[in-house]
This record gives sequence, structure tokens and C-alpha cells, in this order.
Amino acid sequence: MDTVFMPAIPSFICMVKFVIDQQVEDIEMPENLKLNTFLKEFHSDCSHKECDFGYYGFAFGQSPFPVPKIMQDALAKNADKGQYAESSGIPELKKAISDYNKRYFRLDVEPKDICVGPGTKELIYNLLELFHGTVILPTPAWLGYLPQIRFLRKNFHMLPSARKINPKDLEHLILRLHDRQKILILNNPNNPTGLLYSRLELEEIADVCRTYDVLVISDEIYAMTTYNISEFVSMAEIYPEGTFVTNGISKSHSAGGYRLGYVIFPKNTSEILQNFKKILATEYTATSTPIQHAAIAAFEESSEIDEYLSVTRAIHQIMGEYTYNTLLEVDGIKATKPEATFYLLANFNHFVPDFNTKKIYNSQQFSESLIVHPYHTAIVAGDSMVLERTDFSARLAFVDYNGAQAMQNYIASKPSTTSEKLEFVRQNAPRLVAGLNMLQRYILDLKKDAASIIAQKQSSHAQ
Amino acid sequence: MDTVFMPAIPSFICMVKFVIDQQVEDIEMPENLKLNTFLKEFHSDCSHKECDFGYYGFAFGQSPFPVPKIMQDALAKNADKGQYAESSGIPELKKAISDYNKRYFRLDVEPKDICVGPGTKELIYNLLELFHGTVILPTPAWLGYLPQIRFLRKNFHMLPSARKINPKDLEHLILRLHDRQKILILNNPNNPTGLLYSRLELEEIADVCRTYDVLVISDEIYAMTTYNISEFVSMAEIYPEGTFVTNGISKSHSAGGYRLGYVIFPKNTSEILQNFKKILATEYTATSTPIQHAAIAAFEESSEIDEYLSVTRAIHQIMGEYTYNTLLEVDGIKATKPEATFYLLANFNHFVPDFNTKKIYNSQQFSESLIVHPYHTAIVAGDSMVLERTDFSARLAFVDYNGAQAMQNYIASKPSTTSEKLEFVRQNAPRLVAGLNMLQRYILDLKKDAASIIAQKQSSHAQ
Repeated sequence: MDTVFMPAIPSFICMVKFVIDQQVEDIEMPENLKLNTFLKEFHSDCSHKECDFGYYGFAFGQSPFPVPKIMQDALAKNADKGQYAESSGIPELKKAISDYNKRYFRLDVEPKDICVGPGTKELIYNLLELFHGTVILPTPAWLGYLPQIRFLRKNFHMLPSARKINPKDLEHLILRLHDRQKILILNNPNNPTGLLYSRLELEEIADVCRTYDVLVISDEIYAMTTYNISEFVSMAEIYPEGTFVTNGISKSHSAGGYRLGYVIFPKNTSEILQNFKKILATEYTATSTPIQHAAIAAFEESSEIDEYLSVTRAIHQIMGEYTYNTLLEVDGIKATKPEATFYLLANFNHFVPDFNTKKIYNSQQFSESLIVHPYHTAIVAGDSMVLERTDFSARLAFVDYNGAQAMQNYIASKPSTTSEKLEFVRQNAPRLVAGLNMLQRYILDLKKDAASIIAQKQSSHAQ
Repeated sequence: MDTVFMPAIPSFICMVKFVIDQQVEDIEMPENLKLNTFLKEFHSDCSHKECDFGYYGFAFGQSPFPVPKIMQDALAKNADKGQYAESSGIPELKKAISDYNKRYFRLDVEPKDICVGPGTKELIYNLLELFHGTVILPTPAWLGYLPQIRFLRKNFHMLPSARKINPKDLEHLILRLHDRQKILILNNPNNPTGLLYSRLELEEIADVCRTYDVLVISDEIYAMTTYNISEFVSMAEIYPEGTFVTNGISKSHSAGGYRLGYVIFPKNTSEILQNFKKILATEYTATSTPIQHAAIAAFEESSEIDEYLSVTRAIHQIMGEYTYNTLLEVDGIKATKPEATFYLLANFNHFVPDFNTKKIYNSQQFSESLIVHPYHTAIVAGDSMVLERTDFSARLAFVDYNGAQAMQNYIASKPSTTSEKLEFVRQNAPRLVAGLNMLQRYILDLKKDAASIIAQKQSSHAQ
């Protein structure tokens, strides 16, 4: 059944009834949009004077740094490029991406096996359109995959992966699936956990995938944010025959707004690539030409980009360690210790009895109670990451600070000791510090309130 | 049945069989990609010295002018905008688009009813995803609609419309369709004919649509190229309650490579727009932020844009009239007289007996015979525009000249008399002149060859 919409307000002219495709009706609002609406609804400007700080932003997954100057210059210089580009990307860009992958990730990728698109998100969507098969989605997961899988009406199965994918669990799930093709979505480094898969861990997953001919979409958009970059291993190095790598400039180069990503196809898949190009050409012609030229500067070797990447990585690490340590100061909070990205996954399940006493029964209610006065703290709650609604886990992005200033100060005086790093966070990320304090206060209040509610009940019971 | 691909070249590692979705297999290569491949295959560099001109380009629908300087400057100035934009577009851009539509097209559009996307093509695709219903596609048609309709597996019916949609034919077709919703794709001004619908013609179409509750996607991407701009009428003015207008910067502002378009939703359809935003957020997050800032300059009122639009329109008209007149010099060629765009549709069906004598039986063979030595002339043949394969019609784009130079010369000395215009074409578009001469020569050769083949046959028969 499709749904019929009648315009709400009568107009002088006859009204048309529009019939929306049921497929569209059925997908939930994607989480990033929901988050926006949610923040608007629950965080109206607070009437309390001391709340003029707005809200503490641990929700949005956006790098706080400016786009590298060399990319900005390249974009400005190529503003005259008004002509349509080839649907799979301009040759110079594909060459630069090929070199970049050799240089940093030890991947021997030929430019012809690369396909450029207007963002990694759209390319993942296009890959899901391209391939027949049942999708295996390890959870917790980035909030973008599930709406795509649902909108494309693909068969899918979750693979609960508390910290990382367990190869045995993966194998058990695969054995239950009877589809001719299985597609594993691997996200490494991982959003929301900030964890990195080691070579050995990837090899164990690859062994399973090889045995059962599983196709892997390896979303490596955070590869370049790995704090110790030499530790990053691409799945395409371990399982080259079955891995489709996606990456881009949104996270490592802080250029999410530019909208550019790429896919690396396995060798000898030109017929499949040809089919992929049909999808691209049918849906969106090509990626913005000036943006493609700007991206060349992101991928070409330059000391500016090298410094940019190493400085931003180091700052993410400092902020990540601070966030992790501060959370762990509170008895009962657990968290993943990030090795990459600008996220960690914090686990508040220890406090479930207290939550329940305060009539907070699911993660949605948890995040709502955090955004209102006096806390004003925005997080991404568990169900947005495809966790059970009753799982009180939350993704915290540690990005609520002035990235340009932090970079400048880092370069001027690189903090190396523990106390220098602490001082760096205090100086450069006061909102991060205040927001984490607020979170601690929330937990203290929660326990205090819960205790007092129980005490009241007991006393009224005693009377 | 899905198709299984095995990598063609054996590798040392075990191979994975990939299963491609049948839907992807089934869509033909989109025509713009096919054209590229076709040109590469059939126009290898000619061994004849005199053919160092490459080929005459009447095939690609790309404006020859540079992107307006004011847009280039805006893009350069906003290269630092690395942050994700709102999925439906940044408010300043939607405000500028609203003003632009009031100013030029008498449309009272509120910014909230506008949705920005990475190209009009993708937005049309998204609209086709959004709406349930059977698509009515008037033919000949732009080469982009059909692959989208097919890929989305939508029900559709052609509506043969030799020059323009005949409202009676439209009504007859609608009465045969039993879907709850019918979607008419209107392309005005029209690609490939270059024709413009008058207010009266639109009213007659709107009457039918209103009677049968037909939803109209009005692709008005060429609106601003209307030679006499005061003659352009938007379907949204005539049938506001049922029309979704698409437009952008690709054609009027020569910025196809920038990738930006917009949709105007009818008033009081906020629930439908909300569903549309879900699609956008699910598939591609948002449109490139720096590109959106550049587009503000395209839509905001400025003397530079006004002059740009009036000069480029005038040059398109001069080139169009020259192309039309030159084609009509050949007895038997018919053509539409363009009133907008940079195309016309030429009809070579008069020569079918000659084509057949030379074993040219369909429009594909026709275009192949035109691209080889000595003609080297690229056109878009009939079947690419959803015409019968045996219809020897061709779209000719009159854009093979240096647009920047033509603009400069036009501004320096505006040609007004017929002979000044002829001189302007000769001075500024020598390849257009030579290409049309080549087309004339092709027809003369065709008739001569056909006559000589017949004579030979008759003489061999007589012997």
C-alpha cells in the first residue's frame, strides 16, 4: 500500500493527491537528519542565564579542522572548470589516488580500477545497488548504512560485534545464509568505536570470507586518522580478490562538505566496473569537476599534506585520550580506547537501575535527558548505531573545539608529556573539558536522584 | 537470473565470483557514455592528412561558454567551506533561487519549498524514486530519462510527440493507464528539438493533467536559454498544484561540471518534501558546500549575470539560425527551428531509399557512417532520443566553437543585420560552418553513391 498525501492547507485551485512510493515511506529518517531535528526540538535556547554556551557537541561526526590550504588553493585555481568530467573521475585524480594508496597503504592500485564519486556515502549506496546479495552488518555501525540497505530493500543480517567482528560469529552467520552472495560491510578504523583492526584480525576475517566467497565492502574513510599510521592495514592488502575499498577526503582532510570519495575495485573486474559506471552515469553524470581538481592536491605527495595529516592525527589522539580518561574517572562507565577516528563508544549500562528509577528506559530517552537543562550535552545514542534500544551505549565525538587554533598551537609547541597534553586540551578545547564535566555531573545527579527516589518510596512505604 | 562474473585473467590467489544485480545488467549504457565509447571506437585518428581537424562535434550537449566570472570568484572565495551542508541546501542559496524564480519566471516560490541537489539529473532520479506511478515519456526525449526509468523498474509509456505533446494524444494515453498515479515528464524548452511551449499549449496540457490528477515533472533546465526570454512560461505558473520544476546551472550558466540543480515543490507539500529529504540524506548527505556558495552568485541579481545570460542567449540564437538555415539548403532535410537551447532536431527520412541502397538501415548505422572518413561528424542519432531505430532523425548541438572568444566579439560589436550575423558565425564558429558543409557533402555523396550503385545494378542486370 502506498500512502496518499493531500496538501494540508486548502488552496483556491484544485488539489492533486500525490502517491509516495512505499519504499520511501518505510525508511526512517536517516540519523544525521534526525539528530538535527532532535537537537532543534529538545534544545531550544535555555532560559537559564548560565546556559549561554549553547550545547556541548559530542554528536556530529565532523572534523573540526580547516580544509588544507593547498586544497583550497587548488579549488580556487580550478573554478573555471565548468565542463562535465568523465563519470568515473578525471585521469589526473585517479592517478593521484593510485599513488596515494601505494605511498600510504601499500596498495598496488591501477588508476583504471578506481572510481570517483560525490562522496563515499553515495558510492557505498551505488555498490549496494550494483551487487546482488545479503548484507552482513556488524553492529554497532555507522548511522548511514542501515537506511541505505533498507531503502534498497536488500536482505540483511546484523552481526553483533561488541568491540570487533568475531570471525567465528561471522562464520556461524554465513552458514545460516542461503543467498548466492554475501556482502560484509567492514568499517576499519571503526565508527563508532574508534578501534583499529590489526593485520592478524583482518587475516582471520579474510580467511572466513575467502572460504565462503564473501564480498567485502571495506569502508576505510578513517584510515588516515589512525594515530599510529603505520599500524593501519587495508583489507585490500589481505583479501585483494574480494575487497572493494571506499575512502575519501571527508574525514582525513576535513572536507566533508566538498563531497568526494572513491572506490577501489579488485584487479580484473573491469566488466563489473563497467556496470558500476552505468549506475554513476545514470544517476548523477559525474562528480563536480572543480572539486575533483581540489582533491588532486589532497592525494598528491606534498609536505603540506604530510604535516596536516600528522598534526591532525596527533590532536585527535590527544583529545581522544583525554575523553577516554575523563570518562573512566566515573565508576561504572566503560569505553573503547580509540586508536583512530574522532570517536569512542561509551557504555553506561552499569547505571541501568538508576536510569529505570528515573523512568529512562531506552537510549533515546537517555540522550533526551542529556540534552535538556542543565546538561545541554548532545551524544549519539545506541539505537542510532543499530544497537538494541535498551543498550545504554553512546558515541562521543571529541571535536567540539576550534580546530584551526589547535593546529596552530600544536605546531608552535608540540605537547609531549602527559601534563603538557592535559594543558593542551585545557587551552585548546575548553568546551570539550566542560562538556565531559557536564557528563560526569549528569551521572552523579542520576545516581543521587535515583537514590533519593528510592529513599522516598521506602519512607512512604514505612509510613 | 543474476549474472556471475569471473575475473578474466587468472591470478595467483583464489578468485571470487561476483554476482551483479540483474537490474544493473539490464540497463543499457547511458547514451552519454555510449557516445564517448562510440566516438573512440569509430573515430580513431584518421590517416588522411587533411583530417587533422579531429571531428566536428554536434553530439555533446555542453554549453561552449566559460562559467560566469562572478561564480568562479564566489567558488574561489568559499573554498574554505569544508563543512557538511543541510541536505536540502544552504538557506542563502534557497533564498537566491526563490528570488531568481520570482524575478525571471514570475514564480512565487518560498525558499522552504526548494530542494538543492548535486545536479538536476540526480534530482530527477530522486523524484522518480519518490513517487509511485506510471511515467509518461514524450518522445523524442533527452537521452537521460530512459535509463533512470528503466533502472528504477518503473512502469512507463512513450508518448510520440513529433514536435510537441498533443493534448489529445496525452489524454488518450492517460485513459489507457490504470495506475493510481501518472507522472508526465515535460521538458520545456525541449531537448532535442529546441522548441518552446507557448502559454496556450501549456494550458491545454495542464487541463488534461488537472482532469486526470497527473503529476508533472517539468524539466526546465533550458528555460534561461530561451532566445526571447519573455516568451518562456513555466509549467509551475500554469499548473502550480501538480508541477515539480527542476532547473540548475548546467546549461544557462555553462556550469555542467559544477553539478548543482534544484527542485521546486508545489505549495503545501511539506510532508512530501520531508520524504524527499530522506532520500537525499540517505543517498548523498548534501550538495558540495563551496559549489552551493558559487551558485548563489548565479541566482542573485547582478548586472554581470544579466549580461552573461543575454549575450549567451543571443549567440545561441545566431548559431541556431545559421544551423537551421544551412540544413534547409539541402533539399529533403527537415529541421525544427530552435527557439531556445543549443539543439535542433534534423530529419533525414527523405533519404531512406538512398540510405538503404548503401546498406544503412537504421539511425545507429547512419551516425556511424557520418563519423568515419572523410566526414568525421558526430551527431546523436534517433534511437538515442527514444525514437524508432529506423527513424533517421538526429540531434545537432551547435556548440563546436570557442565560446569565450565569441562572447568577447559579440560584446565588442553586436551583430544585428542578417549579413552581420552570418559574418559573426564565419568569424567565430569556423568549425560549425565546416561541419555543416561536411554534412551537406555527406548527403550529396550519399545520393551520388546510391545512384551509382543503382546504375551498376541496372547495367549488370541488363548484361
